[in-house]
Amino acid sequence: MKYGLIGTSGRMGKEISAVFDEAGHELVFSYDIDGITEKDTPEMIVDFSLPVAFAATMQYVIKYKCPLVIGTTGLDSAQMNELQELSSSVAIVQSFNFSLGVQMMLRCIEAVKPHLKGWDVEISETHHRFKKDKPSGTALMMKTSLGKDAPISSLRLGNVAGDHKITFASLGETFSIEHSATSRRTFAEGVLSSANYVINKQAGLYSFKDVIDDAC
Amino acid sequence: MKYGLIGTSGRMGKEISAVFDEAGHELVFSYDIDGITEKDTPEMIVDFSLPVAFAATMQYVIKYKCPLVIGTTGLDSAQMNELQELSSSVAIVQSFNFSLGVQMMLRCIEAVKPHLKGWDVEISETHHRFKKDKPSGTALMMKTSLGKDAPISSLRLGNVAGDHKITFASLGETFSIEHSATSRRTFAEGVLSSANYVINKQAGLYSFKDVIDDAC
Amino acid sequence: MKYGLIGTSGRMGKEISAVFDEAGHELVFSYDIDGITEKDTPEMIVDFSLPVAFAATMQYVIKYKCPLVIGTTGLDSAQMNELQELSSSVAIVQSFNFSLGVQMMLRCIEAVKPHLKGWDVEISETHHRFKKDKPSGTALMMKTSLGKDAPISSLRLGNVAGDHKITFASLGETFSIEHSATSRRTFAEGVLSSANYVINKQAGLYSFKDVIDDAC
Amino acid sequence: MKYGLIGTSGRMGKEISAVFDEAGHELVFSYDIDGITEKDTPEMIVDFSLPVAFAATMQYVIKYKCPLVIGTTGLDSAQMNELQELSSSVAIVQSFNFSLGVQMMLRCIEAVKPHLKGWDVEISETHHRFKKDKPSGTALMMKTSLGKDAPISSLRLGNVAGDHKITFASLGETFSIEHSATSRRTFAEGVLSSANYVINKQAGLYSFKDVIDDAC
Repeated sequence: MKYGLIGTSGRMGKEISAVFDEAGHELVFSYDIDGITEKDTPEMIVDFSLPVAFAATMQYVIKYKCPLVIGTTGLDSAQMNELQELSSSVAIVQSFNFSLGVQMMLRCIEAVKPHLKGWDVEISETHHRFKKDKPSGTALMMKTSLGKDAPISSLRLGNVAGDHKITFASLGETFSIEHSATSRRTFAEGVLSSANYVINKQAGLYSFKDVIDDAC
Repeated sequence: MKYGLIGTSGRMGKEISAVFDEAGHELVFSYDIDGITEKDTPEMIVDFSLPVAFAATMQYVIKYKCPLVIGTTGLDSAQMNELQELSSSVAIVQSFNFSLGVQMMLRCIEAVKPHLKGWDVEISETHHRFKKDKPSGTALMMKTSLGKDAPISSLRLGNVAGDHKITFASLGETFSIEHSATSRRTFAEGVLSSANYVINKQAGLYSFKDVIDDAC
Repeated sequence: MKYGLIGTSGRMGKEISAVFDEAGHELVFSYDIDGITEKDTPEMIVDFSLPVAFAATMQYVIKYKCPLVIGTTGLDSAQMNELQELSSSVAIVQSFNFSLGVQMMLRCIEAVKPHLKGWDVEISETHHRFKKDKPSGTALMMKTSLGKDAPISSLRLGNVAGDHKITFASLGETFSIEHSATSRRTFAEGVLSSANYVINKQAGLYSFKDVIDDAC
Repeated sequence: MKYGLIGTSGRMGKEISAVFDEAGHELVFSYDIDGITEKDTPEMIVDFSLPVAFAATMQYVIKYKCPLVIGTTGLDSAQMNELQELSSSVAIVQSFNFSLGVQMMLRCIEAVKPHLKGWDVEISETHHRFKKDKPSGTALMMKTSLGKDAPISSLRLGNVAGDHKITFASLGETFSIEHSATSRRTFAEGVLSSANYVINKQAGLYSFKDVIDDAC
């Protein structure tokens, strides 16, 4: 497919264009702090940039009347509302995490939580020393899936890409679900799956969970 | 409730009677290598013994026309057929594993496997040095749930009660589900849940999975 | 050997007398909240009780002029000074932890710390839900061995007997040392090793580390 | 320093030149399948290539009379003998593993093994799916350090860079030491430490363990 990419030069932007290239897709529209390149009309657009670029993203999606996959974090509620409105005319996949394994972890938490109501729960996450915020957004998503409060331990170690673990325990057993990212590439692959999904969808606002459900 | 127990003096028998006692239930019928005690008519019978006692179990369930929870391992197919036939007249829960956490692990494996088809899988299990058989029955149940072949690593260490882990991995992430038994009591609690379930059920053959599903 | 035990009916007291009995030693003097039994002259005394019994411990060690192994926690500095003084006339092993594995962990921390000065460090400990204090005393011992500050994460889960882990990380690797207690018996075995050590020693105040060093 | 590099275009060669560049060192001599570049006289030479280049390595070290750090694997005993002979006139650091963490793991194994003689031991290693050989060379080094036989479990999962773990267990506790490589860069840093070490040394054959011991 011919695709557009907003946030081309960022760390995720580079991963995304590499993964899309390998899959035989062609970058025809690029928007970045360094400039804009429009070689052709994109069949869909990916935005993995910053909230400041959001207005431009909206403008180009409307211009090209094409589907959008957006993974930009930090959007405010007004911007989320704009996305919602735009989704009445184009298909949009929006998510804060495009890792399949994280989705599997959330799915498992939802599957087991009705059975483990009286069990103790602890969440822990380990990230590289440069990650300043605690706890991680994914750990908070885990707590949301759990549907009740749970302590979160945050460890900062070396260059760990991102480990998350939830442990349930009764007086006779412990049960854990754990995810480790071993490369940023995995997120780019989730974006590619989302692009393949969204390009054939009717207008609407979809999540990465919808993409995964569709794949089975 | 008034209950009967076949295999009273075994390690699991002792755990079961302790857990049932704490819950206010009364042992009125006991069958064991050491003898038989019939103080009253049991409302249900638990059998956690050996295949040699199976004929006696059948006889007493028929005599008392009461539900049965049976966790005896090593039954042959003829005995399993007898159970099946008996279940046309009484309610029976049969399982090889009464741990809630192991059931949760199997459930998660089934939930994620359609999404992780191309991922590598490894199963590992660790048990105390006295466990001679490799791999563990639970590891084989995990492979059955997975629905495809996977290597199983078996470690034998000290007095580890029983750890099981399954790890899925793509080129960018790993996803693991892990269970550890920390006491034999947990299995006795699964038997008690099964007793509470079976006592109000119509005739039929139920699994521990049915018991768990009913609890939610 | 003929031994005395102060704190006979406590959880550790029971473990200690079981382990000593199995090794063929004879309990000839017992002191507890329930009473005192003096059947014979002990060759050494074990105190695993509470600070309130400390005065009695001192009195009996002086009476019998015999070695002492003491694992009572919560002694104040005056009591520690009394121990120090008493050690000029009898051999005493004093420690807050009689687990061989914990000593190995501390030893490894000391062995690697000069090489990992610039690495990140995180300590974590997991204990049963009934343990109210955070962090554990052993985690603090680990920080002392490390010789610098490090974050400690404390998890409280089910009936976990006691797990401790220290992880060092640079930008290219992580290195961890981990200990799990799987039964209280292990501490009783450390006490037995200490008893065998102290019975042939000259007067002095020894640590469990001394006992272990002597064993090799 | 001005350094030479044999095996410039390999995966490790690229990591090494990147790490040396960042540290301000200048590549003045390069030898590779693609050709030879001699811009200046190197103060030391690094060889991270293949056994077929060994003869060239010897020739250039003799030509420049400079120290050598060599991490090439698969050298035969004749080549190892040549290294030994050459070390009578120049300083050489030779190792199959330049990871500081792996050295720490080996050091800990040696520190604890005399104390854990009767304990069970299990070694496990996890590597990416492309690693065909089992077990890993590092796992074998661990067994050598242990000084006795131990089972090795080998797991092959995704793109795991390299995890190694050794667990000791008695009937009451388990004690583990674990190492994970999170980037190949860590080995290049070990090579840089070795270069800084060897450049001021007298003629002789040194190991990476010597480099580490010297650093403290």
